[in-house]
Amino acid sequence: MNNRQLLLNKRPVGFPSEDVWRLEYNEIPELQENELLAQVLYISLDPAMRGWMNDVKSYVPPVQIDEVMRCGGVARVLESNHPDFKTGDHVYGMTGVQEYCVTDGKGWVIVDPDLLPLPRYLGTLGMPGFTAYFGLLDVGQPKEGETVLISGAAGAVGSVTGQIAKIKGCRAVGIAGGPEKCSYVVNELGFDACIDYKNENVRQGIKEHCPNGIDIYFDNVGGEILDIALTRINKGARIPICGAISQYNNEVPVKGPSNYLSLLINSARMEGFVVFNYRHRYGEAAKMLGQWVAEGKIKSREHIETGLENWYPTFKKLFTGDKRGKLVLQIADQN
Amino acid sequence: MNNRQLLLNKRPVGFPSEDVWRLEYNEIPELQENELLAQVLYISLDPAMRGWMNDVKSYVPPVQIDEVMRCGGVARVLESNHPDFKTGDHVYGMTGVQEYCVTDGKGWVIVDPDLLPLPRYLGTLGMPGFTAYFGLLDVGQPKEGETVLISGAAGAVGSVTGQIAKIKGCRAVGIAGGPEKCSYVVNELGFDACIDYKNENVRQGIKEHCPNGIDIYFDNVGGEILDIALTRINKGARIPICGAISQYNNEVPVKGPSNYLSLLINSARMEGFVVFNYRHRYGEAAKMLGQWVAEGKIKSREHIETGLENWYPTFKKLFTGDKRGKLVLQIADQN
Repeated sequence: MNNRQLLLNKRPVGFPSEDVWRLEYNEIPELQENELLAQVLYISLDPAMRGWMNDVKSYVPPVQIDEVMRCGGVARVLESNHPDFKTGDHVYGMTGVQEYCVTDGKGWVIVDPDLLPLPRYLGTLGMPGFTAYFGLLDVGQPKEGETVLISGAAGAVGSVTGQIAKIKGCRAVGIAGGPEKCSYVVNELGFDACIDYKNENVRQGIKEHCPNGIDIYFDNVGGEILDIALTRINKGARIPICGAISQYNNEVPVKGPSNYLSLLINSARMEGFVVFNYRHRYGEAAKMLGQWVAEGKIKSREHIETGLENWYPTFKKLFTGDKRGKLVLQIADQN
Repeated sequence: MNNRQLLLNKRPVGFPSEDVWRLEYNEIPELQENELLAQVLYISLDPAMRGWMNDVKSYVPPVQIDEVMRCGGVARVLESNHPDFKTGDHVYGMTGVQEYCVTDGKGWVIVDPDLLPLPRYLGTLGMPGFTAYFGLLDVGQPKEGETVLISGAAGAVGSVTGQIAKIKGCRAVGIAGGPEKCSYVVNELGFDACIDYKNENVRQGIKEHCPNGIDIYFDNVGGEILDIALTRINKGARIPICGAISQYNNEVPVKGPSNYLSLLINSARMEGFVVFNYRHRYGEAAKMLGQWVAEGKIKSREHIETGLENWYPTFKKLFTGDKRGKLVLQIADQN
């Protein structure tokens, strides 16, 4: 049985061109003791992938040239020499962008397709949801009545962040691109307001929709919007730095926040985090998020594209914003 | 009796020119109930003064045009209608840049000239010392064995910060301008090392003197050095933002830290603070700092210039770095 794999072909400069990766058929290695073979069903596309391709020290080692492109995914166990997994189990783990994967199961978990649609384990009940959960609650520490501003509000992380903010009794204001996304954020997800950065003046929008200032700015985008947000923070504000999608494909140096001295004036803090720090608490996040989803307090949607051959146009959607909900690529039929 | 006062004449753009202020003789108003009249002996010159002159919202209101220039100082009570102060007391408070001041005494404290030289109440036992104390201990939260990097290490705040870091069992590495200051920082104050940013490569110096990375970067300067420090922080690092003296006289926008995404990668935080947040704990800081000074664990020196007419050349020294120790201007003879 041959395995179609997406390998990193060369390191990108700026926005990755299609030939940064190559598709290749390779033999599946023989299963060893304590390993399992799984068929990949859905993979998760996330902005963080862009960072994993740079040859720099980071919170995880970079993907190497000729290595399978890293990603999380949901798969079905075909064969198992591992005591914790059996044939037919649905599992979540770092599958990589390929049709089949062989793994020792470290960090993998079993997921239940009868409880939730499988792609949701890549979004709200997966890394993006956990990122929102720990980033807002642990780093942001929201208090009832506070105002939480969230960029990338229609995205996989931002959408959950705002809904948790609402659950915690905060005012949630989103920033997203385009009227459709803003309407989704307010009317479907229940944010108090959403600023359309493509068609509105963000400075004016923040002034209008955060009349009491910003207590938490949950930043997914960096760049100009971070700088504007910094001008409206309250004393003691928290800025969880979750990402900086506006800067990931830069060919020039990252734009640092010129208004960072607002942190000094307001005794505020800007704090980075990665979800992997909270590995030991994933169970807690899964339980709480699962409960909120069941209670209808957290809604979500996935944008599902199909076929490994559509990797590149799907990847591009991460950065063009031309997607609705958590971006997922279906690799094989679920049944 | 006439009072010579330094008034704000106009708002500066970039580095303040001499005519930003003017000296003027004015009548001393008659003393009211619960007021005191004091003769100013020493005033404190601090980089923060530059910020107070900008017409922007900050942690204190800006000094207004035609108002006495704001500053802290030590004075001697000449006359008192206030129950807490009597003639002959030495007092610390926001005297303003002038020969005499009339005040309701709010926020003023009595200081003892027999315990310490009076100028020290403007440095180690005053706002700069308190700033170091709370900025390092509360914001930085040093743990034994950690590495603390301090810019402006020969300055009023930085010099105390590094000595407290040593008291707490940390490795203290300074950054200062010129061999004389660096030698003072290491040989007199007991830092483990000091990088001369005027004559050495700071990146290389940090690499050499912080071989285990940076756990706390106590930032007084901002700009390029902040950006370099960000490339060497450890996981969970803290960056108390105390000041940004390199940026205060900018005529162009402040240089934001391009490497701020190092906060994300390292789950680190950058946190601003102002000493006034800790007003309710000044007593604690004064007690601890006083004890450390008495034990010889904290050393300090003051750079004292003389005469209100020398205000401008003295002020300039804040930013040229042409000073040794806490910058103080003597306004009147102490005895």
